[in-house]
Amino acid sequence: MSVCAGIIVTGTEVLSGRVRDRNGPWLAEQLAGLGIDLACTTIVGDRPDDIERALRCMASQDLDLVLTSGGLGPTADDLTAEIVARFQGCGMVLDKGLEERIQAIVEPLRERMPNLDPQALELGTRKQATIPEGATVLEPVGTAPGFVVPPVEERGAIVGKMVLERALPGHPTVVVLPGPPRELQPMWRAAVQAPAPALQAVIARASVFEQRTLRLFGIPESEIAQTLRDAQNQGVALERLEITTCLKRGEIEVVTRYPPDAAGVYEAFARVVRARHEDTLFSTDGTTVDEQVAALLRGSHPPDESRPPLTIAVAESCTGGELTARLTGPAGASEYVVAGAVVYSNEAKVSLAGVDRGLIERYGAVSEPVCRALAEGARTRLGGDVGVGITGIAGPGGGSERKPVGLVWLSVAGPDGAGLTRSVHLPGGRADVRDRATTVALHLIRRVLLGERDAGPGLGGVGTGRGGAGTREGLRNGRAEKSE
Amino acid sequence: MSVCAGIIVTGTEVLSGRVRDRNGPWLAEQLAGLGIDLACTTIVGDRPDDIERALRCMASQDLDLVLTSGGLGPTADDLTAEIVARFQGCGMVLDKGLEERIQAIVEPLRERMPNLDPQALELGTRKQATIPEGATVLEPVGTAPGFVVPPVEERGAIVGKMVLERALPGHPTVVVLPGPPRELQPMWRAAVQAPAPALQAVIARASVFEQRTLRLFGIPESEIAQTLRDAQNQGVALERLEITTCLKRGEIEVVTRYPPDAAGVYEAFARVVRARHEDTLFSTDGTTVDEQVAALLRGSHPPDESRPPLTIAVAESCTGGELTARLTGPAGASEYVVAGAVVYSNEAKVSLAGVDRGLIERYGAVSEPVCRALAEGARTRLGGDVGVGITGIAGPGGGSERKPVGLVWLSVAGPDGAGLTRSVHLPGGRADVRDRATTVALHLIRRVLLGERDAGPGLGGVGTGRGGAGTREGLRNGRAEKSE
Repeated sequence: MSVCAGIIVTGTEVLSGRVRDRNGPWLAEQLAGLGIDLACTTIVGDRPDDIERALRCMASQDLDLVLTSGGLGPTADDLTAEIVARFQGCGMVLDKGLEERIQAIVEPLRERMPNLDPQALELGTRKQATIPEGATVLEPVGTAPGFVVPPVEERGAIVGKMVLERALPGHPTVVVLPGPPRELQPMWRAAVQAPAPALQAVIARASVFEQRTLRLFGIPESEIAQTLRDAQNQGVALERLEITTCLKRGEIEVVTRYPPDAAGVYEAFARVVRARHEDTLFSTDGTTVDEQVAALLRGSHPPDESRPPLTIAVAESCTGGELTARLTGPAGASEYVVAGAVVYSNEAKVSLAGVDRGLIERYGAVSEPVCRALAEGARTRLGGDVGVGITGIAGPGGGSERKPVGLVWLSVAGPDGAGLTRSVHLPGGRADVRDRATTVALHLIRRVLLGERDAGPGLGGVGTGRGGAGTREGLRNGRAEKSE
Repeated sequence: MSVCAGIIVTGTEVLSGRVRDRNGPWLAEQLAGLGIDLACTTIVGDRPDDIERALRCMASQDLDLVLTSGGLGPTADDLTAEIVARFQGCGMVLDKGLEERIQAIVEPLRERMPNLDPQALELGTRKQATIPEGATVLEPVGTAPGFVVPPVEERGAIVGKMVLERALPGHPTVVVLPGPPRELQPMWRAAVQAPAPALQAVIARASVFEQRTLRLFGIPESEIAQTLRDAQNQGVALERLEITTCLKRGEIEVVTRYPPDAAGVYEAFARVVRARHEDTLFSTDGTTVDEQVAALLRGSHPPDESRPPLTIAVAESCTGGELTARLTGPAGASEYVVAGAVVYSNEAKVSLAGVDRGLIERYGAVSEPVCRALAEGARTRLGGDVGVGITGIAGPGGGSERKPVGLVWLSVAGPDGAGLTRSVHLPGGRADVRDRATTVALHLIRRVLLGERDAGPGLGGVGTGRGGAGTREGLRNGRAEKSE
């Protein structure tokens, strides 16, 4: 029987859509790592009634564990601890030791900000040190402590150092965590280690599943649906695997969870995917294209100690800096990213990337020759071993019949000067086109670093080359794109 | 009595945290615009039981309206329509006309992808055209239709062209929408206009609230809490306003909702905020700093037709392209963004931004003189009226005691060559430092465009200037940062 949890995220600013919830997704991944099944995540505002109702809904689903985030601050309207205590049927008590520890944290703040009202500060500290009776305290990361609150039936058992095999239905263990991700994340890690028998019992009963990720680029999601049917027809026992596929930034992610004894089934499934999608499957170990490009530039994957890291430089137009920002995202990127030039104006294309003004006049800024010149300029002018050029029409204005919004040219020149040049026609609004073009560029860089080259100059247009680097993006059916 | 709704987002890839939910937040804003109160958003996987349980939980809260997203695809595991029908107590019927309309949509796909199995396609179409009895069909945007499914008690009334004043408790109207945001958004807009009496009745009963947003930069959230207390003490009837404050990318957002007859109360509250935070309140009309910078560069706000748009160029190091990407985000940015240079290496600082090599050797790449030289180089070398320079240590490596991770220098030179230079010490990881520094830069640009200038060269270091442009970032209490 699987161990099942629910997450309650509190905060009017999250519910209203103004602030993106980062805690639900993060906790979901943590639970999956512990082999705990997640039934649902519910986002509610700061109203006590709504928080209590969410707890009751979770309880009615016979969950073993509920995690809450938010509502632990020092002010009177932060009520999560009190609501959870009432729900678990226990009172609130002041923990004197905890009060002193919070005071020690708040003290420096008080010195730096003499305007703070000392009485309000004291009341806040006392409020945060008043905890559900019988709960295990999770020490503050900011000023707010968290709690593991055992289900009411278990409390006696815990005092006697015994742990029930399973909580009674309708009485989950509740872990109360603060709202700021910077506080919640270390506190959850501490909670997993904490001497909280109710939580330890839940974790101990969970069976850890394996999770593996395949990533593909350049095919519609429906192709994967067909591959699943093929695998089934070939006798792969897919019912033993929990497979989810989704389209994310133009890439297809196939995530499979399975019990350890189904490893052979997974391998058989992965073989079918590999055979059918050899040219579009780019990751079988969960690595992202960003990580792969970084490793290829460093020479660490495949390992190649015979050479120093390759450097890279970018001359991008319509993506406006997004490719360089993504390349410089990983720590240590300064070892291989030399420079990026956002050549938004024609003047900048000429002066920064050394594009021949005549090319722009003859073919227009969004054209194959200018794109190649940008890549070459990135290599020679900006001084990377690898040079990348991007020019396109992100919209909403600037499109024409011959060069519609969404048309993007991309070119990557390798250390030998040769490389790959492609054009794609990307769907969506301005932000979509910029984001998608950045992903296509990373895949093109990856392929050049793996040694692919266009057959010869002038052959790199639409439809040449295998895989199509996202050119089939336009083909969508009702399921092709899920929310991202 | 307020009209209350719930949102159910379905999708294992969303629940697991692998794909970010964009539908919940978007629908939340749409409901707010209609004056409909949102009680909660629940995310569940694709398991029918979980979806049904979520519906039951919503019903137990006596909601008037439930919106669902996802699970409307052509395959057998897309079950939302069926589950909602069962929940509302109605059967499923094939809509022949709808089947033909879906066929017409699928036909071109079939031609482009001859590999598709025609029988599977036909079954899928039939499945998607099989709808809850009595539901109003929302025409497909992709291939999937949506539905407005009236509550069971209302169905008779609707047939007779009558609409109950209020649905019976526990029987909400359910609007069933597809998962891809690109399909969901137009379909929801169509639903609001659709001849679906059950939905129209809900909308008609809602009373539209006003919503106003104030934005501040450079103070901790606790200061706003104090302002609320002050306003209350001054007799402003805050209980008539629904105020939420949150810290988002280093800025404080104060969102207030109120019934139209409380407009005077809001004005009184806004006056108190203005008086107490004159130097950090930068937006009273909801505009973001990105929008303000764009408007100032265009000369459209404040209106100044006497001059052409000002242009801007950026030489950024530790932010790796993020500032240029943010400046080029809005449509039409090509009118004023000339170029950006990501001068990650010292070599690039010299060759692209014209920084004197001696300055780097003497003061180091992360220093006030090099930062000023970057801004000046952006102006003169890259050719913007306004030049921006950023250099700092994003981490995790590269910090020292004198120059720790998080130290960032920022300089903006205005059209006259003078401007503002600041250093900040930003908390958090690499991504946080990059993101926060970008926001600080936008505020510095805004202030220069509004005419602020440092008193003289060499005076622009830490602690000078008012507001501190985020320098107080380090001061955090338990509530200061909410999830974002």
